[in-house]
Amino acid sequence: MRYVIEDVNDPRLDDVRNLKKSDAHGEGLVIGEGPIIVERLLASAYPTRCIVGFKAKIDTYLSQHEVPDDVPIYEVTRDMLTEVAGFDMHRGLLASADRLDAWSVDEVIEGAQTLVVMEGVGDHENIGGIFRNAAGMDVDGVLLGSGTADPLYRRSVRVSMGHVLRLPWARFEGGYTNWQHKLAKLSDAGFRLVSLTPSEDAVHLAQALKGAEKVALLVGAEGPGLTEHAMKATDVRARIPMAPGTDSLNVATSAAIAFYERQRSLLDF
Amino acid sequence: MRYVIEDVNDPRLDDVRNLKKSDAHGEGLVIGEGPIIVERLLASAYPTRCIVGFKAKIDTYLSQHEVPDDVPIYEVTRDMLTEVAGFDMHRGLLASADRLDAWSVDEVIEGAQTLVVMEGVGDHENIGGIFRNAAGMDVDGVLLGSGTADPLYRRSVRVSMGHVLRLPWARFEGGYTNWQHKLAKLSDAGFRLVSLTPSEDAVHLAQALKGAEKVALLVGAEGPGLTEHAMKATDVRARIPMAPGTDSLNVATSAAIAFYERQRSLLDF
Repeated sequence: MRYVIEDVNDPRLDDVRNLKKSDAHGEGLVIGEGPIIVERLLASAYPTRCIVGFKAKIDTYLSQHEVPDDVPIYEVTRDMLTEVAGFDMHRGLLASADRLDAWSVDEVIEGAQTLVVMEGVGDHENIGGIFRNAAGMDVDGVLLGSGTADPLYRRSVRVSMGHVLRLPWARFEGGYTNWQHKLAKLSDAGFRLVSLTPSEDAVHLAQALKGAEKVALLVGAEGPGLTEHAMKATDVRARIPMAPGTDSLNVATSAAIAFYERQRSLLDF
Repeated sequence: MRYVIEDVNDPRLDDVRNLKKSDAHGEGLVIGEGPIIVERLLASAYPTRCIVGFKAKIDTYLSQHEVPDDVPIYEVTRDMLTEVAGFDMHRGLLASADRLDAWSVDEVIEGAQTLVVMEGVGDHENIGGIFRNAAGMDVDGVLLGSGTADPLYRRSVRVSMGHVLRLPWARFEGGYTNWQHKLAKLSDAGFRLVSLTPSEDAVHLAQALKGAEKVALLVGAEGPGLTEHAMKATDVRARIPMAPGTDSLNVATSAAIAFYERQRSLLDF
């Protein structure tokens, strides 16, 4: 059902109220911004609560997509949404959904051939980028070690183009120095565990991935990279060669190159 | 020489005044932010005009680096710099330099084995990312076709980690539909011209690069990609395979993968 809302204090707009502040708590609702991500949110496991948007944006969306009857659509003006959300939401279309633990670690591992494991990745944009590129390059799921920030944060969802909502992911339990023991689950399931590191004594990424049936790619925090604890729990340390005097690659870029190499290693040339 | 400045209206601070506004003109000074980029600016071809920073940041910098005698250093407080620059410049250390056309197209081509050519890349962050990754993965220079934004814009410089200041680059003359004729210079110099495209009928990137002595990698605008004019002027169209129903990669990510594959194609495995 579609409703026109005229009062900024209407409680039906509470899901999109003060979005920057609710983000800051880190455990707000799942918010999807823009038509592509709204569509992916509706198709995801997360129960959509409502859609909020400008009249023209809703009209365009509904002319191209179905919305289930039980998801209310609230029409607001741009000025109203700016006041409610706390900033100019120029995309003009949002959806909110409830959080849930959509997958367990075992479910993410089950049937997967390629996984990525993040440790200590604190930057929401990098997390979003890793999900986007993982989805694009045939990675089957994502596992999070200690210190990795919330993939369902609004910025991560946006940068992931909504793929964080559909690519299976789960979080390993355990703290900074012991979550790594959980990696044994991957070894037991037949995965080759590959640490990405700029270290000179690591082998070339292509050599590290060659001939593996199942691969789990581990990437570490911006700056310090993977902990020694994590690297010790893996089978091989892999590097992307870098020119002397330059900086190591951004973690999302390194991961994208590893996803590419993994796909390439399964091709016949 | 080092000077303590106490008046925000002191004309010696004009280089860093209203930085967002001078950026918007697109042809301001070259501004480097943070110690790493300040160091790279001082080592670059661009004539450094001055360094501005907080006392502690200047002390730390000078304890680790030399600054030429003819580059004045202006010490300011954080509050002063916020007022002068127009926002909180928390890195606390900047340098300004004059712009110049540091290289010609011929100079960039001369002696190079791997080049990247951008067309229509309008996002300063992507431009900076491409320079950073090019420097890191042995690309020898960058050429800009029509529609590509200013690599010396403050944000590009920052995202490039200062590599835009040291990697040779130049701009091809010509408009949207005719700059592509200039690509003949690269063919004449023995380069294989490779267009990156998500198109299904392109060959795999690894096949496109195999066995080439010199390679020029062409990447296009976010969204539309390379123009047909540009792709027609190249020898081969190359793609990075993507999973169905996903989005094409960000241009800086695609370029990074191409740089990786180029390096890899020169190795013996």
